[in-house]
Amino acid sequence: MFAAIRELGIELSPSLLEGSQALFAPFAPRPTPQSCLVERDMAYGPEARQRLDVFHPPGAGAGQRPVLAFVHGGGFVRGDKGAPEAPFYNNVGTWAVQNGLIGVTLTYRLAPGARWPAGAEDVALALEWLAGNVARFGGNPHRLLLIGQSAGAVHVAGCVAGHHRRRSVPVISGAIMLSGVYDLLSLQHSQFEEAYFGSDRARFAEASTLEALTRTDVPCLFTVSELDPVNFQQQAARLLEATWAAKRVWPRLLYQQGHNHITPILQLGTSWDTLGGELLAFIGRVV
Amino acid sequence: MFAAIRELGIELSPSLLEGSQALFAPFAPRPTPQSCLVERDMAYGPEARQRLDVFHPPGAGAGQRPVLAFVHGGGFVRGDKGAPEAPFYNNVGTWAVQNGLIGVTLTYRLAPGARWPAGAEDVALALEWLAGNVARFGGNPHRLLLIGQSAGAVHVAGCVAGHHRRRSVPVISGAIMLSGVYDLLSLQHSQFEEAYFGSDRARFAEASTLEALTRTDVPCLFTVSELDPVNFQQQAARLLEATWAAKRVWPRLLYQQGHNHITPILQLGTSWDTLGGELLAFIGRVV
Repeated sequence: MFAAIRELGIELSPSLLEGSQALFAPFAPRPTPQSCLVERDMAYGPEARQRLDVFHPPGAGAGQRPVLAFVHGGGFVRGDKGAPEAPFYNNVGTWAVQNGLIGVTLTYRLAPGARWPAGAEDVALALEWLAGNVARFGGNPHRLLLIGQSAGAVHVAGCVAGHHRRRSVPVISGAIMLSGVYDLLSLQHSQFEEAYFGSDRARFAEASTLEALTRTDVPCLFTVSELDPVNFQQQAARLLEATWAAKRVWPRLLYQQGHNHITPILQLGTSWDTLGGELLAFIGRVV
Repeated sequence: MFAAIRELGIELSPSLLEGSQALFAPFAPRPTPQSCLVERDMAYGPEARQRLDVFHPPGAGAGQRPVLAFVHGGGFVRGDKGAPEAPFYNNVGTWAVQNGLIGVTLTYRLAPGARWPAGAEDVALALEWLAGNVARFGGNPHRLLLIGQSAGAVHVAGCVAGHHRRRSVPVISGAIMLSGVYDLLSLQHSQFEEAYFGSDRARFAEASTLEALTRTDVPCLFTVSELDPVNFQQQAARLLEATWAAKRVWPRLLYQQGHNHITPILQLGTSWDTLGGELLAFIGRVV
């Protein structure tokens, strides 16, 4: 498996994205009526992309499970939580339920139609919805966690940094950011960053989350992949540098050996999984 | 288990060292006549501490297994490969054999009697011995790997950097360094560094391995632990910084969530093991 991942290279080409999904699709855990039910496409806001799926065990009513909400990637301009029959990201919700959590996958408005901080605002709005509604699926509204990948990690970071302009967002118990971008000032911007953040350099400091991530009280966990493109590796290096300068301690930053930009989340719940145990260890400590 | 590790703190006190060993000792894999034999205390040099144990499967003769040689820690001034009945580091040799390797544990001369670069020289001498002798235990003399922890990682790094003054040391296939020290110039020295490296600052640049580690052709894998003392976390940060500056890529640097300075090696082969799979992935790629 890891030799096959390596053959796909590091550039985020269609062949890497599709090839990575093809590798793990046959092994992705899927919801089943016996152990994992899914309530799909619930509206957490008025926009068409403000939708989320809740993965929960049958008959749960105690409302004590921690809630893990996944924010997909896609360069700010595409991506989805996945249709009912899609392996991804039904794997994330199913894995969550298999491991004692309530799983949530959500979509958000896309750039360039919806620009910064629309992503953080949508994630915050979804948190509000979960705080008010997740108990009926067995979730604890006071134990909400976010996990985002790539652009999704950027939106999670934006939410942690308070870039949403909402007053009363629920306090989250933890934030997990996989191969994200945190420092727009040092980043070499691609068309994807331009679509979401625009090209006005004066905004980049304001839109960066790096400093806030070193100061937040929210427990954070990060990953960087061995086969991440250089920009994402650079961002993780900046994260270490800024965290070290501020606190003289390493960020919780897991190096995903043998993985590319997207495989850490695709592998979740498969027999190759190098991340799930670490996520559970983190979640177990912070909830 | 991880809650118990956390309770031991981060300072390298006797209670942390003994407490960590007590936690994992009942679960440490041990050699058995059925699956893992040990040839003990073979002399790789004339000094009393130049001894090694070879862990090998019964009846092996093909000589094709990669060889993983473990170099213990102990602040340069103490430590041991472990007596026959000791859980540590018989666990390392046993785990190696269970996973298709030949395991080796070795001792080396200690400071202050034997100062820099005596550790690297002893490791190099042990490699020479293995190159000449390991085939009879089923090991491939052209597939030698080193793994060191703490001071042992320093000696492994010194060996990679060529600080031994030997001419013809076998080329190794990989080097694994757990919570080591690489940059003596930025390190706040303790009595342990002084015992081995002395207090002559002019020597610190020469004795540092940081730059060599960013340039070597030997594949390297590193760890830093969440509960490592600040000096070791600082050294890992320096390793990232120097590697990034030299190569614009992350070092293979595994963050050991929930672990202290010594538990990553103590856990090897137990049901909590967060490191063994990563070691095998690394070894599988480089041999």
